[in-house]
Amino acid sequence: MLTFNDPGKLQAWCRLRRQKGEKIALIPTMGYLHEGHLSLIAAAKRKNATQIVVSVFVNPTQFGPNEDYDKYPRDEKADVTKCRKAGATAMFFPTPRNMYPEDYSVFVNEDRLSATLCGARRPGHFRGVCTVVAKLFNIVHPHFAMFGQKDFQQVQVIRRMVRDLNFDVEIAMAPIVREKSGLALSSRNTYLSDAERTSALAISEALRTLRRKMHKVSKLPAGDVKKQILAHLVKNGLKPDYVEAVDAETLAPSETIRKGVAVMIAAYAGKTRLIDNTII
Amino acid sequence: MLTFNDPGKLQAWCRLRRQKGEKIALIPTMGYLHEGHLSLIAAAKRKNATQIVVSVFVNPTQFGPNEDYDKYPRDEKADVTKCRKAGATAMFFPTPRNMYPEDYSVFVNEDRLSATLCGARRPGHFRGVCTVVAKLFNIVHPHFAMFGQKDFQQVQVIRRMVRDLNFDVEIAMAPIVREKSGLALSSRNTYLSDAERTSALAISEALRTLRRKMHKVSKLPAGDVKKQILAHLVKNGLKPDYVEAVDAETLAPSETIRKGVAVMIAAYAGKTRLIDNTII
Repeated sequence: MLTFNDPGKLQAWCRLRRQKGEKIALIPTMGYLHEGHLSLIAAAKRKNATQIVVSVFVNPTQFGPNEDYDKYPRDEKADVTKCRKAGATAMFFPTPRNMYPEDYSVFVNEDRLSATLCGARRPGHFRGVCTVVAKLFNIVHPHFAMFGQKDFQQVQVIRRMVRDLNFDVEIAMAPIVREKSGLALSSRNTYLSDAERTSALAISEALRTLRRKMHKVSKLPAGDVKKQILAHLVKNGLKPDYVEAVDAETLAPSETIRKGVAVMIAAYAGKTRLIDNTII
Repeated sequence: MLTFNDPGKLQAWCRLRRQKGEKIALIPTMGYLHEGHLSLIAAAKRKNATQIVVSVFVNPTQFGPNEDYDKYPRDEKADVTKCRKAGATAMFFPTPRNMYPEDYSVFVNEDRLSATLCGARRPGHFRGVCTVVAKLFNIVHPHFAMFGQKDFQQVQVIRRMVRDLNFDVEIAMAPIVREKSGLALSSRNTYLSDAERTSALAISEALRTLRRKMHKVSKLPAGDVKKQILAHLVKNGLKPDYVEAVDAETLAPSETIRKGVAVMIAAYAGKTRLIDNTII
């Protein structure tokens, strides 16, 4: 497995691989890799990628001033070991300075899908995400890129960016990977105390309960479901940020929960903001 | 020579050309082609492009609400004839709708170089330019793209976009093409009455006078030169929009005119806004 720090060197290498007829997959991550990330590598293999490039970059432009950029967990050495074992063929560890020179001045904005949910609570977040993903697409020029469903809004924003800016890249989404307890894997889970981790289970419980109900009925009123989920989160000591039922394509609010609707949750366990979702 | 309307079809064709080892040049234009545009095709040939793609698109997102989008001159048939004769191998005539679907929502912003000169007078102009050029780069994925020096700020903004978003595209700039009178070629010259056209000569005259002076001295104070140029424009019946001396790289104002400084002019002849420049 190769590792790169310099965007230009990775770009030249990928250009050559592509010329040789190889099929390149890109998996953009912020590192501190867990089974969720590794499932993306496995999925890329199943899609017959011959080169699987995992980027590890805690991207400063997608963090707000009061967010956890500085304390976001990092462990490059462990990430390298995990990626090698999982079958990645190249890793990219850029630096804030070589991604964003001092006089950096170009940003990609998605205006609609970013206006709601996490985008409404984290101003500038999706601007940072779109910008860094556009950069990674141009550096690697992959045939496809893998993203996890846990960041479902991110996936939809990136799909929109790909459509609107005509990126020649397929976006593939892999299912959420969960602990046995149901908790969605996240690098941020490392912030949780034991008590917070127990509280956090309420999020996946609420979504599991909903999915079970939806096996029996084709529709439920979104208002009632949201109230029930909010109550369940609060009862378990969480501070809900949002609970929303949205059209999975447009992310517009939906009054009923039915096929094609995503139920999106963000909630704080202590100071740690967790997200999870289910698509009916 | 092939012609394309559909972005996806052009993208697929370019992907195949590139796989075959061809060298692709892109020349983005708004059509109503003149010798300035055709000089870009000639330059692309000299740079050994094996495919020269000329796009013709009056891009709505780079026009302000009170600008000349509707009346901007168009002549697709003549453009096809000229391009074929000049040696282009493909043309792209997208439509506003296939470039910007109804729920279009992604824009590329350059924040620094766009803040001055034409960018300061035409809010949103360079956002539209960056967005459409990013789209064209992703559709065609050219080895290099040719732009004319007449739109010098545009060239520098696009170079910045390429650097900051890591586009794998070389930007090449070709000199301004002028009528014998000195007037810089522009599709907008077609708006000019005979009297306005005579007035307009004052712009290139002022720049020629300056270049002649700079053959004899290595520096001139920018303030004095700007005053002289403004007076010359006004005397000839033009309404100056700006006359600025700027560092050719950063576009920051320069107090002296010397090597590496661009002198930039925008002025109205009647209702027609004309631009011209010289790089010392």
